[in-house]
Amino acid sequence: MKDTVFEENKDRILGLMSAKKYIHARDEFLSLNEVDAAEVFGEAESELGIERAVILFRMLPKDAAAEVFSRLDSDNQLAIIDKITDRELGTVMQEMDFDDMIDVLEELPATVVDKVLAKSTPGERKLINTFLNYPENSAGSLMTPDYIELKKDWTVGDALSHIKMVGMDSETVYTCYVKDRGRKLLGIVSLRNLVTHDEGTPISDLIVEDIVYVGVYDDQEKVSEAFTKYGFLAMPVVDGEHRLVGIITVDDILDVIEEETTEDIERMGGVIGADDREYLDTGVLRHYRNRFPWLILLMGSAMITGLVISHYELLLSDITSLTMYMPLLMGTGGNSGSQASTLIIRGLALGEIEIGDAPKVLWKEFRVSILLGATLSAINFCKIVFIDRPENALYVGLTVCCAQILVVCLAKCIGGMLPLLAKRIGIDPALMAAPFISTLTDTFACLIYFNLASIILRAV
Amino acid sequence: MKDTVFEENKDRILGLMSAKKYIHARDEFLSLNEVDAAEVFGEAESELGIERAVILFRMLPKDAAAEVFSRLDSDNQLAIIDKITDRELGTVMQEMDFDDMIDVLEELPATVVDKVLAKSTPGERKLINTFLNYPENSAGSLMTPDYIELKKDWTVGDALSHIKMVGMDSETVYTCYVKDRGRKLLGIVSLRNLVTHDEGTPISDLIVEDIVYVGVYDDQEKVSEAFTKYGFLAMPVVDGEHRLVGIITVDDILDVIEEETTEDIERMGGVIGADDREYLDTGVLRHYRNRFPWLILLMGSAMITGLVISHYELLLSDITSLTMYMPLLMGTGGNSGSQASTLIIRGLALGEIEIGDAPKVLWKEFRVSILLGATLSAINFCKIVFIDRPENALYVGLTVCCAQILVVCLAKCIGGMLPLLAKRIGIDPALMAAPFISTLTDTFACLIYFNLASIILRAV
Repeated sequence: MKDTVFEENKDRILGLMSAKKYIHARDEFLSLNEVDAAEVFGEAESELGIERAVILFRMLPKDAAAEVFSRLDSDNQLAIIDKITDRELGTVMQEMDFDDMIDVLEELPATVVDKVLAKSTPGERKLINTFLNYPENSAGSLMTPDYIELKKDWTVGDALSHIKMVGMDSETVYTCYVKDRGRKLLGIVSLRNLVTHDEGTPISDLIVEDIVYVGVYDDQEKVSEAFTKYGFLAMPVVDGEHRLVGIITVDDILDVIEEETTEDIERMGGVIGADDREYLDTGVLRHYRNRFPWLILLMGSAMITGLVISHYELLLSDITSLTMYMPLLMGTGGNSGSQASTLIIRGLALGEIEIGDAPKVLWKEFRVSILLGATLSAINFCKIVFIDRPENALYVGLTVCCAQILVVCLAKCIGGMLPLLAKRIGIDPALMAAPFISTLTDTFACLIYFNLASIILRAV
Repeated sequence: MKDTVFEENKDRILGLMSAKKYIHARDEFLSLNEVDAAEVFGEAESELGIERAVILFRMLPKDAAAEVFSRLDSDNQLAIIDKITDRELGTVMQEMDFDDMIDVLEELPATVVDKVLAKSTPGERKLINTFLNYPENSAGSLMTPDYIELKKDWTVGDALSHIKMVGMDSETVYTCYVKDRGRKLLGIVSLRNLVTHDEGTPISDLIVEDIVYVGVYDDQEKVSEAFTKYGFLAMPVVDGEHRLVGIITVDDILDVIEEETTEDIERMGGVIGADDREYLDTGVLRHYRNRFPWLILLMGSAMITGLVISHYELLLSDITSLTMYMPLLMGTGGNSGSQASTLIIRGLALGEIEIGDAPKVLWKEFRVSILLGATLSAINFCKIVFIDRPENALYVGLTVCCAQILVVCLAKCIGGMLPLLAKRIGIDPALMAAPFISTLTDTFACLIYFNLASIILRAV
């Protein structure tokens, strides 16, 4: 497929560069699409060194240089900034799409940002500063002001001539926007509608007014939900007064979805504060820092379980077979709880479950857990009575099985409720996943088990 | 925001329908966008009953009816098919986008599919059958044949007149495709390029030939990766002979990404075989079936840990304080392993980690685990010696701490390696997540702990 062709191209370009045939290398390089080009450039930088990469970079036409630059990771960007003149940097920045430039600037140190701002006109400087000030992960930080605006009193012909003029500098030409006199968003016109209507058709006939928009301070998670729900190619962003301030396009949302999902999954797996770096690019110390907080917190919780156990030491030394079934109860509890919390966390993330659904969730988890607990403990009872045959097998079996039903039931209800509770009090529900739930249910499992054992087995 | 407006519209339409003011209701309904319309229709069906919903459905213009129908879930679709005539069903199907129709047909029972096929021309029937035969979750099952084809020897003017004619019936007009004489894919032309060039420009000047495509049998996961990587609006699908057979658009991919992520997350949480139904719409028995397999499997694994414990019963009754630290070691092991496996599973899903990276992963996990194990066990040692003070505190502390370092190290390495191994032998790596890893490491934790205890404490 495509992959092998790409590998061949990459090797050929790197080969040309290491043979110092830069002009050849550049020509090959320019035939790649921008995503692949950035990948090859990144490899050139790491395999052949920054010096050679910069030689290639300087030989690129400025639009290609800007495209490649905006797609490099920030370490590579800094390395290049270090080697090129302020003037060259200014040119590259000028040539970049506005939203890409903002993304780049957000990652760069303040001194470099100042350098770039110094090269801009006062108007640009103001706009850049406004965009840099939107909170990270807000719609404002994702949008671009480079959209196409059409006037309400134009015809299709007017619109198409306007698009012909400005189309190459806009983020998208496929959705155009119409504002009223107060700069408020009136509606959208799709290019599909423009090219399928006659030149003389008034724009006002083609405006779609029932449109979906997002607020400039809306979280990117909300924005990506709206894109997934409606399947749009672009969405307008408005301020508090319903004035159009920018647009977000679907290609940027694909990255957001990936980022948000990764964050959710990592949190669910007990990894906190991971940045955008890939696993292999993250240093050992950073991995340590991302993982330590959960482990120490959960170790604290496990110590409480230990305390519970030490409190029942006498019981355990009386009836030694009890210890043998601890992993079973703790394991089943943890896994049952994880199943419930996983489903609720994902349901919350997709907007399929709301906080108000708590009673429905509880009732469903209760019924499911009774069924699961009953089946599992029936199997267990048979195993204990017919295979394990400890002393007082019937009573031990009874204790373990009653405990198992209660543990599964409690674990499922905790697993179902904690993500909802977290959301209610403003904590990320993804934190209430497997590691936390299973450590928490361990304590409950031991408490339930030993108390039941005291009642049932002490009576024997 | 948008949401409150939508709720008001919905309530008004439902109100009009229950007051039998269907014409008013229809007019309000038609002003909604298609996604919201389908949502309102679904609610009308569940709140007012299928009879009233069908009255509204019959009053819709056929294009709106088709749009709404294609977005309903399959239960609602079947309810409607049951109430309308075969002729009406035929009209609705005819009006639908081709890929939506295939999606609908895939969900419907064979008898209904036959009804639809009977209404089609022989040519259509052949095409529908071909599409229905592509494997579920393949690029073929996602694509549509309704793309715009341009001829290499046309001018921009020719292309625009062609688009004006066929544009409304195509899935997208924003990317057009050029084939050679053998129906092989030659390249693409974007509508942006068409509308920003003069009428006389030859199409051959605008063709982009270095394009990314997918194979008709490629898995949808691979397709969505390519969309996220390149940020395209549409991607061509080719058969084994590089002939263009259809295209996939980004709006359909957003749904695929959501579906694939949900499947991954649910598998990681120990829920198997979940269908596309939402949590609250899934019955108790189906929840039971989706969760039972993992629980019983993991219970089996927990039984093995129980066997290990029963094997060391004498040791445990000798040194009763040992039991107290079991949850700590099992918990830390499970959580450490889950962290590693989560990162690797996600890295594999994003294509950031390959099977060949196994040695790098192992080396990284080894170093991280030594750091984590050392910190955690230092804290533990202090707690055991200064706070818990069991008999032989120093030796118990030494045992627990050595065990903890070894357990964390083993858990991280297992957690890092199992997803890679799973991928290697063709199992979904997402299955090697928290529930499985933590249950598995429980056994190892007990084995390591009791063996160390035998050596260190027996020697006292």
